[in-house]
Amino acid sequence: MTRVAILGGSGYTALELIKLLLRHPEVEIVALTSRQEDRPHIAEVHPSLAGRLDLSLEPADPESLADRADCVFSCLPHAASAEICKSLLDRGLKVVDFSADYRLDCPEMFATWYATEHVDPDRLTEVPYGLPELFREQIRTAQLVANPGCYPTSAVLALAPLLSAGLIEPTDMMIDSKSGVSGAGRALRLSTLYPECNESISAYNIGGHRHTPEIELILAKIAGIADAPAAGRFDAQRPAATDVEVVFSPHLTPMDRGILTTAYSRPTRDVTAAELTEVLAAFYRDEPFVRVADRLPGTKDVATTNFCDIAVRVVRGRVVTVSAIDNLVKGASGAAVQNFNLMFGYDETTALL
Amino acid sequence: MTRVAILGGSGYTALELIKLLLRHPEVEIVALTSRQEDRPHIAEVHPSLAGRLDLSLEPADPESLADRADCVFSCLPHAASAEICKSLLDRGLKVVDFSADYRLDCPEMFATWYATEHVDPDRLTEVPYGLPELFREQIRTAQLVANPGCYPTSAVLALAPLLSAGLIEPTDMMIDSKSGVSGAGRALRLSTLYPECNESISAYNIGGHRHTPEIELILAKIAGIADAPAAGRFDAQRPAATDVEVVFSPHLTPMDRGILTTAYSRPTRDVTAAELTEVLAAFYRDEPFVRVADRLPGTKDVATTNFCDIAVRVVRGRVVTVSAIDNLVKGASGAAVQNFNLMFGYDETTALL
Amino acid sequence: MTRVAILGGSGYTALELIKLLLRHPEVEIVALTSRQEDRPHIAEVHPSLAGRLDLSLEPADPESLADRADCVFSCLPHAASAEICKSLLDRGLKVVDFSADYRLDCPEMFATWYATEHVDPDRLTEVPYGLPELFREQIRTAQLVANPGCYPTSAVLALAPLLSAGLIEPTDMMIDSKSGVSGAGRALRLSTLYPECNESISAYNIGGHRHTPEIELILAKIAGIADAPAAGRFDAQRPAATDVEVVFSPHLTPMDRGILTTAYSRPTRDVTAAELTEVLAAFYRDEPFVRVADRLPGTKDVATTNFCDIAVRVVRGRVVTVSAIDNLVKGASGAAVQNFNLMFGYDETTALL
Amino acid sequence: MTRVAILGGSGYTALELIKLLLRHPEVEIVALTSRQEDRPHIAEVHPSLAGRLDLSLEPADPESLADRADCVFSCLPHAASAEICKSLLDRGLKVVDFSADYRLDCPEMFATWYATEHVDPDRLTEVPYGLPELFREQIRTAQLVANPGCYPTSAVLALAPLLSAGLIEPTDMMIDSKSGVSGAGRALRLSTLYPECNESISAYNIGGHRHTPEIELILAKIAGIADAPAAGRFDAQRPAATDVEVVFSPHLTPMDRGILTTAYSRPTRDVTAAELTEVLAAFYRDEPFVRVADRLPGTKDVATTNFCDIAVRVVRGRVVTVSAIDNLVKGASGAAVQNFNLMFGYDETTALL
Repeated sequence: MTRVAILGGSGYTALELIKLLLRHPEVEIVALTSRQEDRPHIAEVHPSLAGRLDLSLEPADPESLADRADCVFSCLPHAASAEICKSLLDRGLKVVDFSADYRLDCPEMFATWYATEHVDPDRLTEVPYGLPELFREQIRTAQLVANPGCYPTSAVLALAPLLSAGLIEPTDMMIDSKSGVSGAGRALRLSTLYPECNESISAYNIGGHRHTPEIELILAKIAGIADAPAAGRFDAQRPAATDVEVVFSPHLTPMDRGILTTAYSRPTRDVTAAELTEVLAAFYRDEPFVRVADRLPGTKDVATTNFCDIAVRVVRGRVVTVSAIDNLVKGASGAAVQNFNLMFGYDETTALL
Repeated sequence: MTRVAILGGSGYTALELIKLLLRHPEVEIVALTSRQEDRPHIAEVHPSLAGRLDLSLEPADPESLADRADCVFSCLPHAASAEICKSLLDRGLKVVDFSADYRLDCPEMFATWYATEHVDPDRLTEVPYGLPELFREQIRTAQLVANPGCYPTSAVLALAPLLSAGLIEPTDMMIDSKSGVSGAGRALRLSTLYPECNESISAYNIGGHRHTPEIELILAKIAGIADAPAAGRFDAQRPAATDVEVVFSPHLTPMDRGILTTAYSRPTRDVTAAELTEVLAAFYRDEPFVRVADRLPGTKDVATTNFCDIAVRVVRGRVVTVSAIDNLVKGASGAAVQNFNLMFGYDETTALL
Repeated sequence: MTRVAILGGSGYTALELIKLLLRHPEVEIVALTSRQEDRPHIAEVHPSLAGRLDLSLEPADPESLADRADCVFSCLPHAASAEICKSLLDRGLKVVDFSADYRLDCPEMFATWYATEHVDPDRLTEVPYGLPELFREQIRTAQLVANPGCYPTSAVLALAPLLSAGLIEPTDMMIDSKSGVSGAGRALRLSTLYPECNESISAYNIGGHRHTPEIELILAKIAGIADAPAAGRFDAQRPAATDVEVVFSPHLTPMDRGILTTAYSRPTRDVTAAELTEVLAAFYRDEPFVRVADRLPGTKDVATTNFCDIAVRVVRGRVVTVSAIDNLVKGASGAAVQNFNLMFGYDETTALL
Repeated sequence: MTRVAILGGSGYTALELIKLLLRHPEVEIVALTSRQEDRPHIAEVHPSLAGRLDLSLEPADPESLADRADCVFSCLPHAASAEICKSLLDRGLKVVDFSADYRLDCPEMFATWYATEHVDPDRLTEVPYGLPELFREQIRTAQLVANPGCYPTSAVLALAPLLSAGLIEPTDMMIDSKSGVSGAGRALRLSTLYPECNESISAYNIGGHRHTPEIELILAKIAGIADAPAAGRFDAQRPAATDVEVVFSPHLTPMDRGILTTAYSRPTRDVTAAELTEVLAAFYRDEPFVRVADRLPGTKDVATTNFCDIAVRVVRGRVVTVSAIDNLVKGASGAAVQNFNLMFGYDETTALL
């Protein structure tokens, strides 16, 4: 039995995480924190949890958490997260961090994109990126895992096998992603008010979204190590390709959850869809949560699951991959539980099927 | 006063067309046809029209229609449409055809994409494509106008000015379009049943959608005539560029109406978003229904209107245009009324603002 | 040509009102006000208005408005509205007030339900309630009209003819209403954030909603004057029934717009659905915006229109009426334009069909 | 380990059932049937099941099913279901029937409402109604359980405790229910096409819905036995109240799943909401899936769960109860698994929390 605490319990990823962990036979949720001043019961914050979890939100006190928990999931925003994760790591806890704080391996890049200095720069290079399909072995032994961004998960899972096999160019990739509104979080904003975004799909932040460097960094690592072994596939110490460039266009889609990513890349030689499908299928043959198929996916195929569905087409000499995930599950809390299972030696699929 | 008949009155484009025409002070709707055997009142087919239009659906009889109407809007499917339009044109009526039958100027291309021989091939080369922003002068004097496809409208309006100015390459364009479900029509299909497509965005028919050749053909005409005059801009007789190639990826989006098209193209030289915005704004300066802005659009900005909103970005050396239309209005029935107004000498915006 | 100003231009009813008035051939919109400190252009506040109206929001200055406008539509919240309407009325302008300030005819009742003293109590008894179907003659000559609440419109239009004819009891009415989310306004609230209310229907404020006394008051007037003449039907001076009692249950429904009201009442004698349908149809025979039918309505039948659709059933000795309106049109801005047309002598349906 | 077969595998309730059973540690799904002629793999019919269940749909052959399965869940339509259930029961299998075939205890009533003679009338009186909260003891020992209708579940769970306690009258109950579109099934119908029912709430079949007699029958049983013991609460052999009468109004709501039922009943004496809440809470104190609260529920609070949330208000002398369930879970497949768990001696909540 592992005792876990969740930092930042009032948002949608925390809610999803709690629901998953309530199904986990080896987990006891011992604490939920919030930066709110009052200490509401979790069922007041998330009515769907009434009768299912009897905890109130409390301020995040590292000392107290370290006494009570073995593992912490941080659903805090960037910067706020590293601040407290640092002190929990120093006290020996294991941490799965949902924020972007430990995803980039370079403090300068972090400062550029997140407009703040990193508070824990020394750890950056040693933290595995929490995509088990690519970094499983590093995750198993890590004290801290950087849970991936939702968009990067959908993009990287579709492109990595083809890049890794040298079948597509690492530059000139157009990544067109469509996300459900829960991806924007639970903060009050006009743009996510129901009558604003219902019945409307809109583009936002094209070229400027913070998931861009994250996608490029992970794809660069992969492009540099096409011959990496199949298990524990990528070695973060190897030199990365330097010229990965993506155009990333996120879109807000009128649905609660789900990300569909249509990515356009350039093949390095003549290829067929059948051939690429076979490469993808072989890459993910033993993966419990990636499904490669001929059929073009929709987000409903994976809704409320930890699956990522992928299909590929070749059109006029271009490779078009389509991938679907649930942004709250494989794009956040499901991936976090998958990482947790690896870090604590549980079966990787526990609570996820 | 112009007497109009509508062929194929039971679908969504016909409903939208009727609503627009009911606001047109110079139009009298005299007949609605349907291939159904019974002759239901239009209010049984479209309850929202109760008390607004007192007509029953009737079989399409060219003789009778020619007696009663000056203009026919055909909302029939391809092949069925040309069959009857042909005989109406021979009787002297003016026709706005919503089907794809007269959009491609080449019978072989039609046969390839629509899997049937064209029944009226001789007219193909002389029919203007009903985008007033590009072919206004030809439309004014035409007896028959090919009303554009919804996806092509959204793609072409965003790309044409840049292609025409020689600022982007005519090849290697990725056109990623997201359409509301009304675009799939009112036929009973599992894929458009509410619980199938609600809360889900899905890709379909990537590389194989019939709007692909239509987009390529119109863009080719435009690419060949970069120096065309601003009014009556394009001359269909001029040789077209031969190497326009697009990758077209349509997506089904959980909303009633709207198309958002994000298109990725390659600039021919170093450009900035500000420069391209200026080119777009200049191109559409006198257009009543195209709005160019810095702000990235959403489909709700244009819902139930005849507007097309366009914005442009330059990201990592790529041009990204985003355009939004209402697929049932600017993408179908609004464009048809705009064409009708031009063909009959009414103010182009009548019933559309 | 009538010059109009709109107070409180940033909300959804103002947006709908502007769209309607832009179609009105006899209206010029001269001013839009807002309590915001900056003075944004209306297209920044409502992107769908780009290119359609070139005005910026300004602070509401009665003096200046009186100079420039003949009529003011106030979309301000209660209390704030009467405060400024009062001074505009004193300056001779005509006013259509969207707030609840002038709907109740008794300051005490207002104070009870709105938790504030009324600032203009003397006018209360003389202001007609802006339902032309019931109070047309009073509206024609009024300087100030109290535009009805959205829920009351849907409930009263269905019940008034049956009450007026003495066919149902004035007590023991259960009014179960389902509203789209735009009815909750554009203020930032967690309950109307997309991921909170999408894919969910919820009950709220049962028994405590402020539209309850408004429904009861209007129904009481009607119950007391069953023999009123058909035109200018109700005389506010006649003694009202005192014992009207409704149970009003509002529900938040996952859609942008629309109200469906299912009301349960008790017949005063044996009745049939056919008989009641006939009574309703006769009552509304000459009304341009009320449609009585056998078919049970849905809100989509009336979306973006000024229509109210009504059907009735008799089940196990109970009368069940179902009525559908668009809360932003017949439930707010469409009714306001209808009232405006009456007040200024324009055709009542101008800009509304 | 229990071997189960599912009859009628292509619909939404079957899909939900499969997902639940895949989480059940003591269940092996051995067969899925369909009346389709081809034998598609289940992943072709339900893409979300790809990689999770490797079975193809087969014709329903009682002999073969009896050899392979211990329990059958029938998701077939009425009449078709009893036809095959009968022969499976004769072969000794246990059956949970989702159809209405065994819910009414009287063949004449069945024939009246379902317009067909019952094929297995002798079993009718002995089949427990599968609401464990009311009939748990009978379910434990049954060979066949009639899984409740979705609407009746939501109505009965809210009203039964108050009726049973003699606090509300058994007549004059208005039951106003709002259901998500999945409740209409997966058959192709115009009314459930996305563009027809999206953004629209509509009433249908008021007074004529087949769930009406089911609600009345179960409420009548309960009204007759107010002093029944708390466990195995109701004894089907006792004489039922004869004068239960409900007005039942179903509404189609634009969401995938969920039912919200607002029911209006008449108290037998002066009551308060607090008192009624206490009665409800006491009644369901030990129930794992019913949550009584002060807060008015929404369907999202229970989405994808087996919970029923209930709140109560007293308004102007009327009792208003509001209950929320997921129509596919507590209203169908979750209840079926709950019944299955009871019939086979598993913990009642297995696979449901």
